[in-house]
This record gives sequence, structure tokens and C-alpha cells, in this order.
Amino acid sequence: MASQFLTEDFLLQTKTARRLYHEHAAKMPIYDYHCHLPAHQIASDHQFENLTQAWLYGDHYKWRAMRTNGVSEEFVTGAASDYEKFEKWAATVPYCLGNPLYHWTHLELKKPFGVAGTLLNPQTAREIYHTCSEMLRSGEFSVRSIMRKMNVKLVCTTEGPLDSLEYHEKIRKDNFEISVHTAWRPDQAMAVENLQAFNAFVDKLEELCNLDVTDFHNYIAALRNRHDYFHEHGCRLSDHGLATAYAEDYTRSQIEQIFAKMRTGNAPNEYERLQFKSAMMVEFGLMDAERGWVQQLHLGALRNNATRLFKTLGPDIGCDSMNDLPVAKALSRFLDRLDVQGRLPKTILYNLNPRDNALLATMIGNFQDGSTPGKMQYGSGWWFLDQKDGMEQQMRILANMGLLSRFVGMLTDSRSFLSYPRHEYFRRTLCNLLGNDVEAGLLPNDLDLLGKMVEDISYNNARDYFPMALS
Amino acid sequence: MASQFLTEDFLLQTKTARRLYHEHAAKMPIYDYHCHLPAHQIASDHQFENLTQAWLYGDHYKWRAMRTNGVSEEFVTGAASDYEKFEKWAATVPYCLGNPLYHWTHLELKKPFGVAGTLLNPQTAREIYHTCSEMLRSGEFSVRSIMRKMNVKLVCTTEGPLDSLEYHEKIRKDNFEISVHTAWRPDQAMAVENLQAFNAFVDKLEELCNLDVTDFHNYIAALRNRHDYFHEHGCRLSDHGLATAYAEDYTRSQIEQIFAKMRTGNAPNEYERLQFKSAMMVEFGLMDAERGWVQQLHLGALRNNATRLFKTLGPDIGCDSMNDLPVAKALSRFLDRLDVQGRLPKTILYNLNPRDNALLATMIGNFQDGSTPGKMQYGSGWWFLDQKDGMEQQMRILANMGLLSRFVGMLTDSRSFLSYPRHEYFRRTLCNLLGNDVEAGLLPNDLDLLGKMVEDISYNNARDYFPMALS
Amino acid sequence: MASQFLTEDFLLQTKTARRLYHEHAAKMPIYDYHCHLPAHQIASDHQFENLTQAWLYGDHYKWRAMRTNGVSEEFVTGAASDYEKFEKWAATVPYCLGNPLYHWTHLELKKPFGVAGTLLNPQTAREIYHTCSEMLRSGEFSVRSIMRKMNVKLVCTTEGPLDSLEYHEKIRKDNFEISVHTAWRPDQAMAVENLQAFNAFVDKLEELCNLDVTDFHNYIAALRNRHDYFHEHGCRLSDHGLATAYAEDYTRSQIEQIFAKMRTGNAPNEYERLQFKSAMMVEFGLMDAERGWVQQLHLGALRNNATRLFKTLGPDIGCDSMNDLPVAKALSRFLDRLDVQGRLPKTILYNLNPRDNALLATMIGNFQDGSTPGKMQYGSGWWFLDQKDGMEQQMRILANMGLLSRFVGMLTDSRSFLSYPRHEYFRRTLCNLLGNDVEAGLLPNDLDLLGKMVEDISYNNARDYFPMALS
Repeated sequence: MASQFLTEDFLLQTKTARRLYHEHAAKMPIYDYHCHLPAHQIASDHQFENLTQAWLYGDHYKWRAMRTNGVSEEFVTGAASDYEKFEKWAATVPYCLGNPLYHWTHLELKKPFGVAGTLLNPQTAREIYHTCSEMLRSGEFSVRSIMRKMNVKLVCTTEGPLDSLEYHEKIRKDNFEISVHTAWRPDQAMAVENLQAFNAFVDKLEELCNLDVTDFHNYIAALRNRHDYFHEHGCRLSDHGLATAYAEDYTRSQIEQIFAKMRTGNAPNEYERLQFKSAMMVEFGLMDAERGWVQQLHLGALRNNATRLFKTLGPDIGCDSMNDLPVAKALSRFLDRLDVQGRLPKTILYNLNPRDNALLATMIGNFQDGSTPGKMQYGSGWWFLDQKDGMEQQMRILANMGLLSRFVGMLTDSRSFLSYPRHEYFRRTLCNLLGNDVEAGLLPNDLDLLGKMVEDISYNNARDYFPMALS
Repeated sequence: MASQFLTEDFLLQTKTARRLYHEHAAKMPIYDYHCHLPAHQIASDHQFENLTQAWLYGDHYKWRAMRTNGVSEEFVTGAASDYEKFEKWAATVPYCLGNPLYHWTHLELKKPFGVAGTLLNPQTAREIYHTCSEMLRSGEFSVRSIMRKMNVKLVCTTEGPLDSLEYHEKIRKDNFEISVHTAWRPDQAMAVENLQAFNAFVDKLEELCNLDVTDFHNYIAALRNRHDYFHEHGCRLSDHGLATAYAEDYTRSQIEQIFAKMRTGNAPNEYERLQFKSAMMVEFGLMDAERGWVQQLHLGALRNNATRLFKTLGPDIGCDSMNDLPVAKALSRFLDRLDVQGRLPKTILYNLNPRDNALLATMIGNFQDGSTPGKMQYGSGWWFLDQKDGMEQQMRILANMGLLSRFVGMLTDSRSFLSYPRHEYFRRTLCNLLGNDVEAGLLPNDLDLLGKMVEDISYNNARDYFPMALS
Repeated sequence: MASQFLTEDFLLQTKTARRLYHEHAAKMPIYDYHCHLPAHQIASDHQFENLTQAWLYGDHYKWRAMRTNGVSEEFVTGAASDYEKFEKWAATVPYCLGNPLYHWTHLELKKPFGVAGTLLNPQTAREIYHTCSEMLRSGEFSVRSIMRKMNVKLVCTTEGPLDSLEYHEKIRKDNFEISVHTAWRPDQAMAVENLQAFNAFVDKLEELCNLDVTDFHNYIAALRNRHDYFHEHGCRLSDHGLATAYAEDYTRSQIEQIFAKMRTGNAPNEYERLQFKSAMMVEFGLMDAERGWVQQLHLGALRNNATRLFKTLGPDIGCDSMNDLPVAKALSRFLDRLDVQGRLPKTILYNLNPRDNALLATMIGNFQDGSTPGKMQYGSGWWFLDQKDGMEQQMRILANMGLLSRFVGMLTDSRSFLSYPRHEYFRRTLCNLLGNDVEAGLLPNDLDLLGKMVEDISYNNARDYFPMALS
């Protein structure tokens, strides 16, 4: 058999998989309900000067691979020129065999750049760099043009409560035909480990809302004010980055005391921090429920592990990995606290440590209440798990322990405008999984049934699940 | 290749697998050493009025899938008619693609009902319902008749210490040709979180044994009295549902104090609860060892997560999931406490969270003492893990870290008389696993050797391992 | 297709796999950077009297399998004759189908003994025993001859700080053409659970170094003295067996107090033990960094679970299994403590509980600093994970979350001179993995690129990574 590596039939090992992909998955638009794109670049319809800026700036996946390959920091995030950095990346790529970066790299060169049949390595680096950089400088490759080329229907960026959303406003006024929404990510509002930063956040919140935040009650009122503001700007989705779930016992008066203590510059102890976070998560859940939003929990990261690089480069620079805190009991209690009030929003749970895959896939089942199909979602393979094996495991486990048919599918979670082929990669993986199962006699050989399932997971389920308006 | 979906060669991808199944596995009777069948229905040779009663009543796997599919509680456990419930289930089935329910459903329609070649969905619901319901109302489909049709040799139900075992007695007196045993499940006897229920249990125990339970010593004596009673009624198997293993340090006098405290209505603290459970587990282990019983530990469930449904429907209604408590050290200590006394019974460990698969598979190896092959067992994929992937993982890990050949194999763990095809499903999975390994050159192509292994795991090992008498 | 079981193409399912193995992997020498061979047997060029002595003595993997198979201790470690023990092992082998022992057994009979085409079982036991025992008694099968036959280039044994290294010295003086190094394993130096043994260790250390160990400062000085001694004898590698990572907060004066307390015979409490271990790990890391050594951490064993056998037979007799302590935070802090000082040595992390596979594979990425390719390594499948599935999972996860190309590959970790086929087994598994991926279109069909990768992982990467001198 001729190799399917990067061909039209890439990852599609069976005839069924090929039909499912080409006849059903490929045609569906992209609904990218969670990403970290900079809204200001969409607002200004940004053009990159070269491939390094579009591809390597801000991509800590690549940085991490380069460091592992023995590339010194100068060429990763340092003072080296854009082309020198690209050369080091090109020299790293052949060592990425087996890593999703190897596939992503070549899929991204193929779409939107049309560079196919050539693998990136030191021999091909110069030509690829110049070809793609030239394209990027043309009007055909502004960020909006790239999004159009990739058949994107909606993206949802991620902003903190203090964000003005001015860029989203600008995009809306432009009548850009692709929906650009924001997601509410209030991690700062409960990041009380760094008390100084927390108090600075509260100060800014006061100012922004023109409210005196004298106590916890007012604090929540001010956050609700911002939540309302986000809602008015079309936001229908929240997102929380959590080491684990929080659901300690607490009383309202304890939380008031902890808040007062912090506002006078006194650090809470560990238990008080957990109580405070437990209270905040309930408040956030209630806000989302009242407004009909979807909440997302990203569970299980251990961040900023290397102090040296954190001090020089800050967060999100490729020094994060998996945590291993217990999660079952607290996650159950948190969800139940909202559910007993009849105020549990639609919820998506993502986990980083795959040892908890099955735990989350069964946790969602506890709180499916029949109000809407797939109300509780176990999210697609996240970060280190966003690769073929990780996606297959997530889908297999979801299928075995829940209903795969009701899955809202893929998201890029990316900071780059070049990451849309991850949807293609996901869809090929999905079609291949189903095709293999048909061949193994595990699924009925019914292309209509399976084709519908593929279309639903690729696009329809997300469109129907999220309350965001489409342009 | 023509699809094997639900054909005679279902799941059997290789010639070796097909020979192993059809020539070796298929002919073995069923030894269902752990289930939750209602003994009174066997005693009365119950007949169901319709398919909903036989299939949906009490099946929280299906309820959970229906809720996930957006079916409201009225049609799951509520006031809707039996047929309306069936319709909702039929509409859910096509969304179960990839879930074991999809396979089980159609295997169960095929055996015992003979409904083959038709998939259950809204179009076929009515006919299937009426066909099967009519059969169920005929004498051919009384529960005993179903068991006979499925070639069952032995079942072992599960009862609490207070159970009179009257139905087992009745069945025995009937000379029913299928052995119906009980397993001793004393979870209530250490469920001290709910002190009121615990004290009510002790009160009833006093009454039943006609003993004054004035202290812990007497409490154990009373439980031994019931253990003896179970033994006299043929019981040779215990079962414990545990969030994790318990092996705290304790003294006899501490336990006496905790018991006295509880009997006067004072709740023990968390540590006392763990001490009490630790003591109880040793006592139960000693009882089993003295009587030559097998003990089963079901580890790792997190139950009754949704308070709303728990309050209206109670336990076991589809709102349970996986826990993630540490287990290694306590489990080792618990087993060692019995082993140092030379009183560790044959033991089967089941786990719910698959992250602990390998841990348990290696834990059993520590206490294999050469007294009998496979004395310590790592049990078959349980509950959420009772599906093809879960069973394969359990067998693969057991093979890699222990001796698969000595495995006692499958059990239904079911509340339904229609679940016996799970044994067929397991055997096909086993034969397919071995067939694939032969094809991959991992196992010698020796059908005699492998055929014997299949027969042993399907039936012989369990028959030889368990001390229950066969009718 | 004819079965490849134990043929030249064993485990090689694709044409690509066969080419990668036969043209690239097979020719590479063996660089066995971690094992537990007894150096004195290499020094004396030991000859075994029979196959039981060479194969069953000290092999707790086999003991465990025999106990599981119902063999009583007399025939495992007891008074039975060597041949009787062999017979019991031969009777156990057919029950090991699916266990790595089944493959290892037959690969080891094939190389170096040339026993091929015959499976070990009760029928073949006598002839195999006599054939191999006779060979072992001939000069062709002294331990050095076996190592030569297996194309070993380097082995690294494991010794405690008190070891004289006299046997390594003797081997060096013999100009043995295979490099025999030691690895520094100072577990005793922090095993403070057994205070008596710890103090005895310190006493011996004092004597050996001719130093007064009056305080912690001196203690470290004495250990550095031994570390220097090891360095002078060619050691460039350390090894630590740890239940989990340790990185509690501590001050120097606290550690001095804990040390003083212990030296006066007073047991530290649990937290003090953790603090002491945390301090020791940093000291050991600094020593390794200063000398340019590689450090190895073996994480996650739960040892000596069965008190009965521990009391009669001691440690390492087949009663160990997997622990489940949290590891992420402490491991990150430990590595960071060294990294912030710029003194993190090259490090290899091994884990026993596979639930932590992905955690470790991502942990190493945090501390890759570009100084050398693959500075931080996620080690090959260890102990219970040293089997085909375990190795595949380790490589898959490393590929997905790091750079497989930079992996230093296989080690035997064995106490037996007959274990070298484990390298062959690993290489076949690696080639098969890559071959399957080429066939699935996941990797480019570029035999030069993949062939180089195979050679690197088989030998070159380890040769370049470790600072040990080759003979």
C-alpha cells in the first residue's frame, strides 16, 4: 500500500473512514469554541511580516521541542533573528517524528500555504521560509483572510473580567462574516496565592465598575457587573483554569472574613484559600446558570515549574506539565452544589492528566438531567493530550462511558491563526476510529448513520449546544 | 470483508479467534459467581409482563444513557407508561454507538428472544416490544426458563447479613437444576457515616440473633452468627463495596470505645470511622478464612453524586462514578494483616478507576503463596470497565503482570435476567485477543494450548476456584 | 501468514519493521547503563553449575510467577534441589502465556544457548536443563563469554556508597574489553525509617572515611568523600529508589537537628523524615551536578508487602508492587531547586505505576534547557512495565509529549547474565512500532531517517549521553 502520509487520505486507513471524511467531515465549517487568539489582531486584520512571527512567536509547544532538542534559549525566545529562529526550528522538526508537531507542521504548511510534498528540515528551510513569508505579507494572508480560507464560522477567544472587549466590539461593527466571541476567564479573581496581584485586580475592578468593593458581597456584585457586560457583548461561555476542583465547606461569614483579611494585606492560609476558591466557583456557576451560559473547567495543570524561565519569560512559555491532585470528590460536590439548586449550567470538563480520563467521563454522567442532550460534556483531548492517541482515548472512553454521538467536538485552544488544521486532524482521527470499528465489526456498516454522527461531532453538536449567535 | 457486526463471528477478527470461540468457548456453561439478581424472582419463577419490566426496570446503565440523550426523568424512572419508556429507550439506542449498551442491547434481543438482523430504533421499537413482551408472558420465558436457555450452571446473588435467605432455601427445596447461591455483603455493618442507619442495622441484628449487642465483641459475635447462618445455607463468598481499602492502626479498646460511642448516638470522627472500618475488614477477613470462603473487594466507586436524584430515587439509579482515593498502602496492609496470621482467604480485587488497573494487578502478586493456583485474583472489568476495551485492558494487564491462564473470568454483576450474553461478549473478546496475538506472532500457534486456556477462563477456573457446591 | 513466533522476524509485523530491525537495530552493540549484576561474578569470570543457578537463583520475576501458579515455597526459594526447582519452573512456563516471562524465557534459551524451536514445558524440561547446564559448565559460557557473545559494549552495575569497588578495580586491571562501570546508589544514606540500620550505615561510613560524622555537615562531607571515590573509579551515574519525590521545606538547622536526633537514637517523625530526605536529594543532586554525572530516579515502588516472606527471605524476593503517592508537585520542586542554582544534572526519571507515565513524560519538558539534546529523560518501561505493551506505551507517550528521537533507550535492570535478549526485545518492539506507523501513514516512508533514529535509540544516544568511558 502506498503511504498515506500527508496525502488526501492521511490517517484514513479504511474505505469507510475515507468516505466518512471526504463525504461528511471535510465539508463542515469550523466552530472553534475555545481559543486564545489575540482579538486585537483580528480587529486590525493583522498581517505578519514573516513565518517566524506567525508560527513561532508565542508557540510554546515549539519552544519546548526546541529546548529538548538542545537549542539554546537565544534561538528560542531570545535575541536571535527571526530567520535564525526559524532555522533552529527547521533543524528540530526531523527530531519530532512521532510528536503531533510533526503532523501539525506539515498540515499547516499545506493549508493555507499550499506547501505540500516537501518536509521541513535544514535543507528545505530557506525556501519554505521565503515562500510562506512572502504570502503572509500579501493581502491574501491577513489573519481574516486566513480564517476565511479555513472555512471558519465562529471563534471564541478568552478574556479576563477587566477586558474592555473593545476589539470584539470593533470586529462586530465591521460586520466581519465570521463570528468572533469572547469567553469569560476570571482566574485572576480567585488567584489568591499571589495576594498583591489579587488586590491589584480588585482595585482595578473597583475602578472599572465604579463600585466600592468593601466586602465579599460587593466583590461578587462587581464581578456580576462585568459578567453582565460580557453578556451584553455576546459572551455565552466561561472558562476556568484549575489545578483541581474546589468544594470545601464554608459559610458566607467565613468568606467575608477571608476577603476582609486579604484586602488588608494579610495572606490567607491554605485552607482559607481553598474555602475562598470553593465559594468563588459556586458564585461563578450561579452567574453562568442565570445567564444560560456554558461553563468550561480546565483541570489538572501544574504551571510555571522552572523558576529560572518564569522569572525571565513569565507564564505560558513551555514549562508547564501535569498535576496529580485528587479531583473526584470535590468535583462531584461542586457540581452537586449547583445542581441541588437547579442551577447547574451546561458544563464542559477537560483534564490534562490522562489518568483522570475515565473519572471525568463518568463524572459527567452523574449530572446529565435530561434537560438537553449532552448537557454535561467531557471535553476533547487538551494540550498534551491534543494528539492522535490522546484524541482517540478521549473519544473511546467517552463512547464507552457516555454518548460519543452527543460530543461537541474539537477546538484549537491555540494562540496561532495557523492552527485550524487541528480540526482536520481531529476529524480524520474520528473518521478513522469509526472506520476501523466498522471493519472490526463493532459498528454497523451504515454510512448514513455514521455520516450523520461525524457531521454532528464535527459541527452540528457544537452549533446546537452553545448559545452563541452566529453572524 | 463482510461486516461481522452481530453475526456468528461477531468480534472474532481472525481465524484463530473463530476456532477458539466456536470450538472451545461457546460450549462452556455459565458460572456467574457475582450478580445482583433478585432471589425472590427466581424462587417464584417470575414472569415479566413486558420488555420494559424485564429490561429497563432497575437498569441504571440505560437510565444514565437516556438522561444523557436528553430524556426527561418522567420517561426514565417516572410516571410514563412502560411502552412510552421503551420508546424513549429505543430512540436513545442509535445514539449509543460505541457504548457497550449498543452491543448488549442487540445481543440480548438475539438471545434469548431470537430477534436478529433488526437494530432497535424508533422505527423498529413497536414490533420488537410486542414480540418480546409476548414471549416474556409465555412459559418459555419465565426467569428460570431464561436461565436454562442461557446454559447457566450457577449464579451467586448478593445479600446483606440480615437477609433470611428464605428464597434461596425455597429454590434449593425446589431442586432447581441451576445452583443459586448467595454472597455475603455486609456493607451496612460498617457504613457508619449514616449513624442512624447503622444503629438501626445493629438493632435488627440483635433481634435476629437474639443476642445482646452490648459491645464490639458481641457485635462481631452476632455477625459471626449470621456468617455461620449464611455458611449453613451454602454461602462461600463475601463481597465488599469500598471507596478504598482501610488499614489504619487501631487497638481493640479503641474500637470498643468507638462502638460504644456510636451506640449512644454520638458520631465518630473521620479517623475513628477509618479505624472502625479497618477493624471490621480484618474481622470479616478472618471469618472468611476460617470458613474457607472467597472474599471480593469492589474498590473505588463514588456513589450518589447527585443529591436531587438520590433524595427522590435513592441509591443505584445511575448517579455513581469513579473515586480517586489512594489505595496501595492500605490495601497492602489489609491483606498483610491477614496473611501474617496465615488467614488470608482467597481474594478477588476489582477496581472501578482504571488508573489503578496495574496497581491491583501487581498487588495480587505480593500475596500469591503457592497454596493454590491464582489464589489472589484481579477481577474482570467492573461496571464502567465492563466493555470491550475495559475487558481487554484488564486481561492484557493481568497477562503482563500475572498469569492470565489462572484467571477466574467473567461475571455479570447484573440485576437483569437478560444479561447473560455478557459472558458471550467476554468470551468473544478473550478469543479475539488471543487470536490477534497469534496472528501478531506473540503467542504460539497451538490451538490445543490456547483452547484449554479459553475453556479454563470461561468456566473451569471458576468452577475449581470457588468452593460453592454445584447442583 | 506463517507465525512469526520466535522466528527471525519475531514481533516485526511489517516489511518496514523487518528492514529497520535487521539492517539497523540488530547490528548495534549493547550499552546496558543500568543493571544489578554482581560485579564479583564478572571479576572472577564466574561459571554456573547449572541452568537453575544461572536462571532461577535471584530471579524474583520467576518466583512470583511460580507462586501464582500454585508452587509452594520449597520449590521456589526453599530446600528443593536445583533440578526440582527447574521442573517446577518448566511446569509454570506454559501458564505464562501473555507474560513477558514467556518471551524472555524462549529468547534466552535461543541466545546464548541456541535452543530454538522447542518450548519449555514439563516434556522438554529435562533435555533443556541438561543441554544448557552442560554448556554453562564449559569455558564458552563463563559470564564474560556470555557477555561477549551478546555483543555487550558496556554495563553499569549498582553499588552502595560503602562498596569498596574492588571487583570493578579487578575487572579494570584485567583489561576486560567490555566496560564495567558502577552506579552510585545511596538509598541507605536516607533510609531513616529503620533508624538502627541507618545509624549502622553512618557508623560504617565514619570508619570507611576515617572521618568523625558529628553532624549533618560532616555527614555530607563523608558522603562526598565516597562520591569522589566512586568518581575516581569511573562512576558517572547515580541511582535512587524512591517511593515518590521529596521536596519539603526545610532549613539547614532543622536538618542538623533531625540528624543529631537520629544519631542519638531518637526516631524522627514522619514530617522530619520527609524533610531529611528532601535535603538529602538536593545534596545528592549537587554532588552529581558538580561532577557532571547523570542522576536516575526510580519512582513509585511499594516494597516488601508480605511480612511473612520478608521476615524469612528479606527484600527483592517478588513481593513488591506499585505505590500511588502523589508525585507531581514534589518532583517539580526538587528538580527546580537544582535548576535555579544552575546545577540540575542530566536526569532520567523512571516510574513504576503507569498512571504516572504522562506526568513524567511532561515533567521532563519543564527542565529541558537546551544545553544538550534530551538532557532530561523519561526512562524506559521499568520492572512490571518492562514488557511489550509497557515499552510501547512509554515510547508512544514520550513521542507524543517529548522527542522520542532523543531517547537513550533500553537497559536490562537485571540480576542475571542471561537477560541481554531484553535489548533485542526492545529493539524489535521499537522497529515494529515505527513500521506500523509507516504503514498507517503516520510517519514518512523514509528508511534512512527512521534507520538513523533506530540506531540512535538502540545505542548512539546512550553512548553520547552518558559520560562513562568506553574500554
